[in-house]
Amino acid sequence: MAVCVQNIRRTDKALAEAFAHYGVATVHEAQGRSGLLAPSITPIYPGAHIAGTAITVSVPPGDNWMIHVAVEQCREGDILVVAPTSACDAGYFGDLLANSLMARGVRGLVIDAGVRDLRDLTGMGFPVWSKCVSAVGTVKETLGDVNLPLVCAGQLVNPGDVIVADDDGVVVVPRKSAMTVLEAAKAREDREATIRTRYQAGELGLDMNDMRPRLAEKGLNYVDQDAED
Amino acid sequence: MAVCVQNIRRTDKALAEAFAHYGVATVHEAQGRSGLLAPSITPIYPGAHIAGTAITVSVPPGDNWMIHVAVEQCREGDILVVAPTSACDAGYFGDLLANSLMARGVRGLVIDAGVRDLRDLTGMGFPVWSKCVSAVGTVKETLGDVNLPLVCAGQLVNPGDVIVADDDGVVVVPRKSAMTVLEAAKAREDREATIRTRYQAGELGLDMNDMRPRLAEKGLNYVDQDAED
Amino acid sequence: MAVCVQNIRRTDKALAEAFAHYGVATVHEAQGRSGLLAPSITPIYPGAHIAGTAITVSVPPGDNWMIHVAVEQCREGDILVVAPTSACDAGYFGDLLANSLMARGVRGLVIDAGVRDLRDLTGMGFPVWSKCVSAVGTVKETLGDVNLPLVCAGQLVNPGDVIVADDDGVVVVPRKSAMTVLEAAKAREDREATIRTRYQAGELGLDMNDMRPRLAEKGLNYVDQDAED
Amino acid sequence: MAVCVQNIRRTDKALAEAFAHYGVATVHEAQGRSGLLAPSITPIYPGAHIAGTAITVSVPPGDNWMIHVAVEQCREGDILVVAPTSACDAGYFGDLLANSLMARGVRGLVIDAGVRDLRDLTGMGFPVWSKCVSAVGTVKETLGDVNLPLVCAGQLVNPGDVIVADDDGVVVVPRKSAMTVLEAAKAREDREATIRTRYQAGELGLDMNDMRPRLAEKGLNYVDQDAED
Amino acid sequence: MAVCVQNIRRTDKALAEAFAHYGVATVHEAQGRSGLLAPSITPIYPGAHIAGTAITVSVPPGDNWMIHVAVEQCREGDILVVAPTSACDAGYFGDLLANSLMARGVRGLVIDAGVRDLRDLTGMGFPVWSKCVSAVGTVKETLGDVNLPLVCAGQLVNPGDVIVADDDGVVVVPRKSAMTVLEAAKAREDREATIRTRYQAGELGLDMNDMRPRLAEKGLNYVDQDAED
Amino acid sequence: MAVCVQNIRRTDKALAEAFAHYGVATVHEAQGRSGLLAPSITPIYPGAHIAGTAITVSVPPGDNWMIHVAVEQCREGDILVVAPTSACDAGYFGDLLANSLMARGVRGLVIDAGVRDLRDLTGMGFPVWSKCVSAVGTVKETLGDVNLPLVCAGQLVNPGDVIVADDDGVVVVPRKSAMTVLEAAKAREDREATIRTRYQAGELGLDMNDMRPRLAEKGLNYVDQDAED
Repeated sequence: MAVCVQNIRRTDKALAEAFAHYGVATVHEAQGRSGLLAPSITPIYPGAHIAGTAITVSVPPGDNWMIHVAVEQCREGDILVVAPTSACDAGYFGDLLANSLMARGVRGLVIDAGVRDLRDLTGMGFPVWSKCVSAVGTVKETLGDVNLPLVCAGQLVNPGDVIVADDDGVVVVPRKSAMTVLEAAKAREDREATIRTRYQAGELGLDMNDMRPRLAEKGLNYVDQDAED
Repeated sequence: MAVCVQNIRRTDKALAEAFAHYGVATVHEAQGRSGLLAPSITPIYPGAHIAGTAITVSVPPGDNWMIHVAVEQCREGDILVVAPTSACDAGYFGDLLANSLMARGVRGLVIDAGVRDLRDLTGMGFPVWSKCVSAVGTVKETLGDVNLPLVCAGQLVNPGDVIVADDDGVVVVPRKSAMTVLEAAKAREDREATIRTRYQAGELGLDMNDMRPRLAEKGLNYVDQDAED
Repeated sequence: MAVCVQNIRRTDKALAEAFAHYGVATVHEAQGRSGLLAPSITPIYPGAHIAGTAITVSVPPGDNWMIHVAVEQCREGDILVVAPTSACDAGYFGDLLANSLMARGVRGLVIDAGVRDLRDLTGMGFPVWSKCVSAVGTVKETLGDVNLPLVCAGQLVNPGDVIVADDDGVVVVPRKSAMTVLEAAKAREDREATIRTRYQAGELGLDMNDMRPRLAEKGLNYVDQDAED
Repeated sequence: MAVCVQNIRRTDKALAEAFAHYGVATVHEAQGRSGLLAPSITPIYPGAHIAGTAITVSVPPGDNWMIHVAVEQCREGDILVVAPTSACDAGYFGDLLANSLMARGVRGLVIDAGVRDLRDLTGMGFPVWSKCVSAVGTVKETLGDVNLPLVCAGQLVNPGDVIVADDDGVVVVPRKSAMTVLEAAKAREDREATIRTRYQAGELGLDMNDMRPRLAEKGLNYVDQDAED
Repeated sequence: MAVCVQNIRRTDKALAEAFAHYGVATVHEAQGRSGLLAPSITPIYPGAHIAGTAITVSVPPGDNWMIHVAVEQCREGDILVVAPTSACDAGYFGDLLANSLMARGVRGLVIDAGVRDLRDLTGMGFPVWSKCVSAVGTVKETLGDVNLPLVCAGQLVNPGDVIVADDDGVVVVPRKSAMTVLEAAKAREDREATIRTRYQAGELGLDMNDMRPRLAEKGLNYVDQDAED
Repeated sequence: MAVCVQNIRRTDKALAEAFAHYGVATVHEAQGRSGLLAPSITPIYPGAHIAGTAITVSVPPGDNWMIHVAVEQCREGDILVVAPTSACDAGYFGDLLANSLMARGVRGLVIDAGVRDLRDLTGMGFPVWSKCVSAVGTVKETLGDVNLPLVCAGQLVNPGDVIVADDDGVVVVPRKSAMTVLEAAKAREDREATIRTRYQAGELGLDMNDMRPRLAEKGLNYVDQDAED
């Protein structure tokens, strides 16, 4: 009953890639604080920031066979999203598969399990967000599914959804709401640019947001330290 | 009953900053192995080393409003120390607030909760020691306290105390004992410089510290491997 | 009853060092997926890759005295392997001992406990794989053993065994099987070099390994997304 | 945009309750090793074993308002399944709400967050599977959703699905496959009853399953200990 | 510079013991959601519920000497509160010391470290809230402090404060506010008794608290499942 | 190259079983604070206390085939000790295998992995010390070894060694030192019985062990609380 779904409906490539201008925190806020993968998923090296369309792979514990099946389904601009059917810390992925994915234009990997060959992956500049690092290899014995909806690190990911990943984590944006969320992210980013400039000039958030009356109303007392005792 | 204490008594600025010459491990030893925050607090990027005076902020879970109140209380040479009243992994702090703090000369942030915008914070060179990284934002609804004594990562921190932070962690030095601890740190560092030179020249700790008689007395046996079986 | 075994039988130095050409994941596979230390042991900075012969040190909780005894037993090409007799997160090792070990040509440290002085160790280029970072120091009161077999992070290590460590973790290769494992690692690496080139040229694992018939036989169905619902 | 879905399609009540005759491990096997919630979800007291239909509740961090909304949607034979939109360890649920749910015939609670009033819940015999125990209360400020599909502890749960929970954990069975899975569980249980009797009589799995030839073929060697060295 | 403070000011014994009528969750709410120790502190057996006055003990890692000093300071109605100066999981406490404390009328132990002899402690009915269980013993070499303020599991505890502990955790109530908090706990408990009765009778929280208008105002939509797609 | 060693040399049955009179903490102390398995290994139900001779089983991750091979090697008084070759949380063992082991007189199971069917195991009174509970089953595809030395939860266990397990954990006693350790345990227990009686009578450890002079010499100061400020 294992399935590999082909010719999936992806978010428009340019639309998906436009998310790479916005941080994960911004995108998460822009879609109403939803879609963030669990913080147990962290980047293997700092500084990477990618956006692309999800190819989803459901793998048995300790078996990476279906990743080979998934590679063929990938094209320029995709991001591979892998989750085991039950928790497993083995190293499902290393530099060989990374070479194969890079040859197809894949932007990176998100995996709720382990990876290995960290130094090679870092040297190649192939970004990975994973649950752990493990030199323990996997076998190729049992089938799983490619491009079915799957739960990865606590979030439902559908094939073709937008994935955005940076040092803060990974967020998934459903294909249908991608345009709306992108606009909200842009609007948020514009607002923040203004705030940033004013903060750099020494202005206070207390004043910029007119917080003082509300703080007083809630009952905040300003006292000098001498009066404290 | 929320309070913001103003005009706190700080450790002398030059005295506090002098601690930046000494590592956290050295300062911790120099004050009798006390004051170390829990090792769950780690730096967001390697290599930072700061010392300054504590501004303390007690925040509700998932609410960073009081950080805005605290910013106004900060001045050149301060370090913001934030702890939630109950454990919370949300991202209380990002690049916007960092810009605001840098504009006031704040040296860095220590927070027993999450931060976000890691790439921006790293790019700006604003050092943070945090419990975790999280893109999950916070709200601004509930009051907390600024510059009251607070427990952060298992240590009591009073406003105006010295905070020292490096790759090994974070240590707090009470304001009243700062001078004494600084001198002890310096003495320790001087001793270690001598030891370092002798170690580099190949001398053994066994000989430098005359450990052999005491090892023998405690019953250490030297045997050859052949005699082992 | 504490013992320091001298003049241990080491793996041949050139043989041991030849392992530094192969990653930990490769060596682990090459010896039949055995010998990997627990993934709780991680490098203090990225990019180091060492191989050498084990000097084993069993230490009491919170006591690093025996590390001083062990230093004298080290020579060019050794790697110090330290494990406490019961779990302890204290910082047993810092830059002073690292200077002493470097003066003797030791390649690095593997320790199932804490280390400190991270910035100094990184600056010196002395690589350490540890369970944690801790500024908490240790005492010198109680004996342990040097160069007896010991369990470190779940693996039995005999003095003179080969230790290989990189960003993926740490693996131990028994002295007697070192030559065989090295050859297997070389053979594996050669095979992987060919695969890497073919992957980079866009060839698929599915075709290179003739996986399609076996996938079909196991029952994998390729469907188009429209047919999915 | 918060929603409470009413009049959901539930699995037939008798069908759902029939699952209470089978352990979670059996049901998990019977549906092809799928549907198991993460092992971080554990029972607050040993020995409970329930099955029923899911009412799903998505709650904001630290806010249990929607549980009150969900209570009204519950009826005899339901099980409440609660997950926060981002990780939260607060105590969302205590003895008061348990009284309210019991009055409506609810069988128990599964929550990927904290609970409190453990002694009362145990005394009442209201079973809970939770991520943690926490005396930290919640507020009632923000909306969430009732009876939308939700991810709880890594598994997708649809309202009306069957939930089975015992000391081994929690498993979800989709409404549409409930009958098939129940039959598979019964068949498995029948087979196991026979095996159990034969094991109790001293028969060996090696013989019952005719494992010896296959073990020999794979290369298992039987040796006496004297021959071992 | 180690100190044992004698003749401490305790909360009135009857007042402290009156807290044993109220659960930790109730007391925590009653004092404005403060004073709760970290949830890492759990009871060694279920069902215990105690309240008493704190005797505080600060111990070095792996050293329980000061507990012997503290025993002499204990009297009827006290609770021993122990925290190591740096994190340590050793078993500081077992059945012998429990016998000594019971002979003095001590109600129980709260310790941010390990205990052992679980079966004996359970058999004696001496309740302990600890961070972990460990058969690893401790030594008696180094001094600590008795009855100075200390941080235990993230909360500041002063000698003589009220400690309340049950299956939900441990809360500390400062001596000076004990009477006020007790009254607030009683008021809260009375309110909850009424709510409990009404819930048992099938009344809904939605109606009892008149939540429907506010839910509507916030935008909650009730829809039937058929309308959902 | 997989091996099943038969006719192992066991510790004398009566000698091994005599350890069941002594707690794990006592035995651990009696053999010089060594041999304790990691505290991650905990009992599935409280109150069990067993001692017996080890049958060791090394299993591949997610594969319990070798446990069937091991059952045949077991006899009255044995304890099964199982460790995976790399970390795995699957449920390797359930009530069926427990029936098979009980039929052969096996005392219990120690496993550095998961178990399932907790309620059945508890009902049968078959004690298990495991790393976790998991309903995830295993396969029977790959060989491992029976009765070779293995590392289980950080300790080296040889077949035929004595295993002692209670609520405090698990300790291994090498076959050759079993008699000596048993005598030391008995002596320790006798000493503790006397101490217990004196403690129950109200005598203080301070006096019984004549600690006061040494405390004074180390510098402990007794002060009254009024003098403290």
